[in-house]
Amino acid sequence: MRVGIIGVTGYTGNELMRLLFSHDDVELTYLTSHSFAGKPLDEIHPHYLKIMETVCRPFSVEEAVEKTDLVFSALPHGESMEKVSILREAGLKVIDLSADFRLKDAALYSEWYKRKHLAPHYLATAVYGLPELYREEIRGASLVANPGCYPTSVLLGLAPLAARGVLDWETLVVDAKSGTSGAGRVPSQTLHYPECTENFRAYRAADHQHTPEMEQELGKLAGQEVEFTFVPHLLPIIRGILSTIYVKLTVKMDEKEIRDIYEEFYRNEQFVRLLPSPSLPETRNVYASNYCDLAVKWDSRKNRLIILSAIDNLVKGAAGQAVQNMNIMLGFKESKGLNMVPLRP
Amino acid sequence: MRVGIIGVTGYTGNELMRLLFSHDDVELTYLTSHSFAGKPLDEIHPHYLKIMETVCRPFSVEEAVEKTDLVFSALPHGESMEKVSILREAGLKVIDLSADFRLKDAALYSEWYKRKHLAPHYLATAVYGLPELYREEIRGASLVANPGCYPTSVLLGLAPLAARGVLDWETLVVDAKSGTSGAGRVPSQTLHYPECTENFRAYRAADHQHTPEMEQELGKLAGQEVEFTFVPHLLPIIRGILSTIYVKLTVKMDEKEIRDIYEEFYRNEQFVRLLPSPSLPETRNVYASNYCDLAVKWDSRKNRLIILSAIDNLVKGAAGQAVQNMNIMLGFKESKGLNMVPLRP
Amino acid sequence: MRVGIIGVTGYTGNELMRLLFSHDDVELTYLTSHSFAGKPLDEIHPHYLKIMETVCRPFSVEEAVEKTDLVFSALPHGESMEKVSILREAGLKVIDLSADFRLKDAALYSEWYKRKHLAPHYLATAVYGLPELYREEIRGASLVANPGCYPTSVLLGLAPLAARGVLDWETLVVDAKSGTSGAGRVPSQTLHYPECTENFRAYRAADHQHTPEMEQELGKLAGQEVEFTFVPHLLPIIRGILSTIYVKLTVKMDEKEIRDIYEEFYRNEQFVRLLPSPSLPETRNVYASNYCDLAVKWDSRKNRLIILSAIDNLVKGAAGQAVQNMNIMLGFKESKGLNMVPLRP
Amino acid sequence: MRVGIIGVTGYTGNELMRLLFSHDDVELTYLTSHSFAGKPLDEIHPHYLKIMETVCRPFSVEEAVEKTDLVFSALPHGESMEKVSILREAGLKVIDLSADFRLKDAALYSEWYKRKHLAPHYLATAVYGLPELYREEIRGASLVANPGCYPTSVLLGLAPLAARGVLDWETLVVDAKSGTSGAGRVPSQTLHYPECTENFRAYRAADHQHTPEMEQELGKLAGQEVEFTFVPHLLPIIRGILSTIYVKLTVKMDEKEIRDIYEEFYRNEQFVRLLPSPSLPETRNVYASNYCDLAVKWDSRKNRLIILSAIDNLVKGAAGQAVQNMNIMLGFKESKGLNMVPLRP
Repeated sequence: MRVGIIGVTGYTGNELMRLLFSHDDVELTYLTSHSFAGKPLDEIHPHYLKIMETVCRPFSVEEAVEKTDLVFSALPHGESMEKVSILREAGLKVIDLSADFRLKDAALYSEWYKRKHLAPHYLATAVYGLPELYREEIRGASLVANPGCYPTSVLLGLAPLAARGVLDWETLVVDAKSGTSGAGRVPSQTLHYPECTENFRAYRAADHQHTPEMEQELGKLAGQEVEFTFVPHLLPIIRGILSTIYVKLTVKMDEKEIRDIYEEFYRNEQFVRLLPSPSLPETRNVYASNYCDLAVKWDSRKNRLIILSAIDNLVKGAAGQAVQNMNIMLGFKESKGLNMVPLRP
Repeated sequence: MRVGIIGVTGYTGNELMRLLFSHDDVELTYLTSHSFAGKPLDEIHPHYLKIMETVCRPFSVEEAVEKTDLVFSALPHGESMEKVSILREAGLKVIDLSADFRLKDAALYSEWYKRKHLAPHYLATAVYGLPELYREEIRGASLVANPGCYPTSVLLGLAPLAARGVLDWETLVVDAKSGTSGAGRVPSQTLHYPECTENFRAYRAADHQHTPEMEQELGKLAGQEVEFTFVPHLLPIIRGILSTIYVKLTVKMDEKEIRDIYEEFYRNEQFVRLLPSPSLPETRNVYASNYCDLAVKWDSRKNRLIILSAIDNLVKGAAGQAVQNMNIMLGFKESKGLNMVPLRP
Repeated sequence: MRVGIIGVTGYTGNELMRLLFSHDDVELTYLTSHSFAGKPLDEIHPHYLKIMETVCRPFSVEEAVEKTDLVFSALPHGESMEKVSILREAGLKVIDLSADFRLKDAALYSEWYKRKHLAPHYLATAVYGLPELYREEIRGASLVANPGCYPTSVLLGLAPLAARGVLDWETLVVDAKSGTSGAGRVPSQTLHYPECTENFRAYRAADHQHTPEMEQELGKLAGQEVEFTFVPHLLPIIRGILSTIYVKLTVKMDEKEIRDIYEEFYRNEQFVRLLPSPSLPETRNVYASNYCDLAVKWDSRKNRLIILSAIDNLVKGAAGQAVQNMNIMLGFKESKGLNMVPLRP
Repeated sequence: MRVGIIGVTGYTGNELMRLLFSHDDVELTYLTSHSFAGKPLDEIHPHYLKIMETVCRPFSVEEAVEKTDLVFSALPHGESMEKVSILREAGLKVIDLSADFRLKDAALYSEWYKRKHLAPHYLATAVYGLPELYREEIRGASLVANPGCYPTSVLLGLAPLAARGVLDWETLVVDAKSGTSGAGRVPSQTLHYPECTENFRAYRAADHQHTPEMEQELGKLAGQEVEFTFVPHLLPIIRGILSTIYVKLTVKMDEKEIRDIYEEFYRNEQFVRLLPSPSLPETRNVYASNYCDLAVKWDSRKNRLIILSAIDNLVKGAAGQAVQNMNIMLGFKESKGLNMVPLRP
């Protein structure tokens, strides 16, 4: 199969190339970059020297149709929806790694992303690409909205109990911490090395644009509208998200019962690992891999559940999950190209 | 005035020396090390070469009495109480940086620190050394129990509202993140560079020994018993704690009213800085300084307050606060030796 | 083919497992650990959870013979030679990642490694496993001495000119910088996170044990005895070596002629990349990959050549090169299992 | 005394403020910023909140004359010379931290800095502000050209032997490594956190603009023209330079004799520390302090001297040295405000 990537300059585009280059069943036949069109790929990403010596193309739907069977869009949100819409109209299967097709409600999109949605007619058919929840829908999808990095870690952490209807939503607090690659490749004061290393801080407290995406999906699982407090923080690391989730239950359960629910829910999921008690996740244990590591810890003094969820934001939180979605859509083995051992140290 | 430090090998002892070396009104006349007794200080801490060329002494109460007016104990918890007890019996003023005299209840100490308390008769008179709360008591104290690093950040973050009685304790969750120097100078697998850098994780979730210390002090402020969920995390940085505190209120207030309470509470406190809205604390802004930076953020969707509190764990969280206590006890200006600008970048 | 690893606890053993797990033509059938014998692999290396759920075995030559066709020894130098000797006597092919069989002269080994060589009779037949220089010998070898990390970077940087006989050896200076994983997995004061991060220093200046290995190999290429000044430094990164090599030439050449020699020498080498001028190597461009990136820069003011050479010390500097050697020994495609894109960011 | 700083936005201006804020004998009365004129200082540098609550001024020579006795220029090279010239014409004493007045030869300046010198008439009287070499000249100077960071580390490392005339200049190689703060506060791709951390590389090999400055000063010491090979590298740390210097001698000496020369040369220098053998410098041992740590190591196999020199690039390499110069110029104790213990950990 021939696949293309729209927008290879940024970190998600780059990570897609890395994963797809090692995927035996697909060929990368079409790579575009707006800012680097006409230039050799290894000029943007010098680590590709002698590995992938190709030239970046400008975007062209004709070329996409001619050269590919499926296209990944790794454009920033706001820029992606127009191109995805064009590709879909030309009949191509698309996996969109931006936020543009994740929310079902165009008004909600406008509210949180501060812009009008340009292709709202695709929102209904776009499938939210979290395979652990929507595998069957993804199989038949033409447009997959690849989940955000924070949502992936939080949804996998909460899904088993949300689906059971035992969460006391009013008590839910998510304190998430992300590495810097999640903020992208464009330099900024915040990510300037002497400002960012040896530093730590929260940002967009209770105001992050991934909030409605999580609330939409948790609401579906719970069968009710849900809202919660979400505070992201910036870690001085390249890759990794750890979400620490605090919630009370509406029914009485002990840690063993809760673990059983998680084990049952993820029994057949290769990429979700429930750690043996009392281990807690570390971002390094999923580094550069598609795994999500989970732990549940019962605070018996306060009858509060603590769920810890770790992913690599660029893999399970972006490009790896996109490849997993592609495998499902194209009928490959779901883990194809994703069996790598996490990189540690 | 002549002061001594018991236990200069570790990071808190070392940081005390750094601060006291630049303090105009005291002289460091007595430095002990169990493991390095008889050896030059700059053999343990080579950065002192040509700065403080002295030899570490073994512990001796006679020498302490002869050479000092006040002694800091920078021994680990469990080891400190015996030496502190001996020094107190000899009539010396002591500031203990370990956890040994912070809890008023010896049974609680045994439960959380897994050992019997050897000097419980000093617990009643030991003053908890958080100047913003106990300035007057510290002034007259002979034994000050210097607060833990996490407790300092959390108590300063919660005190204004705890004292007002407006916190809904049942909803309180503290998600804290600390740099590695808090774990001390002894090498371990967890702090081995290739394991620790580019990594992040929680540890001792809902089980950290600083929990009862915070509950004791918050309970005093609130006039009732309180318990809450506390989860610490290990940051790949050297210095810095950021505590993210989530709590609901028992009365209706907006962010402005809450800010006013904080401003009023800390009006005369040099070392507590309420950031102008919408700024959030960064650990680098208090690096190597005695400041505690606070922000309050109202999550209006969930009617939940988010409080962020940043300190340098070795300064306001340990040695700096100890110097502040010493200044109060010895009648110096409280900020003496602590007016440094935070180190950034 | 069935392969085994002696000593999977350390970083080289762990990296071998990572690479061999993704190698289609071999099966990992025998993994030993002295300190973790009888324990699950994922207890030492928790990132293997649900990936390789096996139990570490104690060393047994019988078991090795029964279960494997080729064995890697990832034991520390000094410990490896005895086990390798036993395995060889039992007829197994061995790739030794320690320094024990690299030096041809047992007396030189004793001088630099401060211990007697226990299997000097294998030194003559052991092949130095740098495929770019000894491919044919490796093909027929029973025992391969896998090169050291510093030597790999320096030899690949100097080989084209050393083989031409144009280096003025008296002027040669190598200033090398290595990441911390090269020092292994055992915690130490030097690698304690708060001591190691935000720090940089040289160590074993003009006294490092890799010196005679480089001199032996350069001497072979040059056809004369050579000695030079080698100073290694410790970088606060996990992976990566950059060697900066300074040397004058015995003949007049310009940068273009020198580049031509390198291009010719490495024309058919997949894993050596001569960067286009004026690019200089960065350790991140070879991260977690088997590449060695080279640049040559002519200092025309001083008529001195500057050669820069970057590798990942755990891959091309250890486990990756060992896999490359295995591929050659077992008749696989040389790049099998080593075609990964460098991990960046 | 009243002092001013032209250009407080960048890292050197910021570091000057940090040091001068703790200096008892001077008052900071005039702070300018082109980009932040009219804005509160703590908007650029939020760590100054509640510490220095002042407003940045636009540059005005009248205001400088009215409010200050001495002015530091922390402007970038190329921008500084015009302002310095204006301040000098108005009769103010100036310490210029840029490169604009370091080279005595305006043509050499043009060649390396790619611009015309706008105030060449001040080059003759500007004193090169390395107190260990030019203390007397600095005492009477009206304009001090504060040395570059690399030159400070290299000159202090070589001065004792250069002055003795025993260096074989043809053999001199300097391999220098600098932290990222030396590159300034403006974000760039190279210093973007995910590109810079876990990475290492050389830059401007044999082409760095600090080369002629070092050659000028070493030439003066040696009484002859000298040239050498200089290669800087970028370390993933905030602060610190380590220069590794390789050179042969024209006379026979052993390590003891060489050490004696260094000890004699720096006998009365507080800020230069010759480490006891066999210790080697670490950048952390001079962190946030004005010290320069030196070691000399004789490579007896190659009869080559290895000199290691460590400084904090923002302190002894910039702002600290500027304060040292100010102390000399204004008749204060030379170490005033510079007696801090290096920050470790």
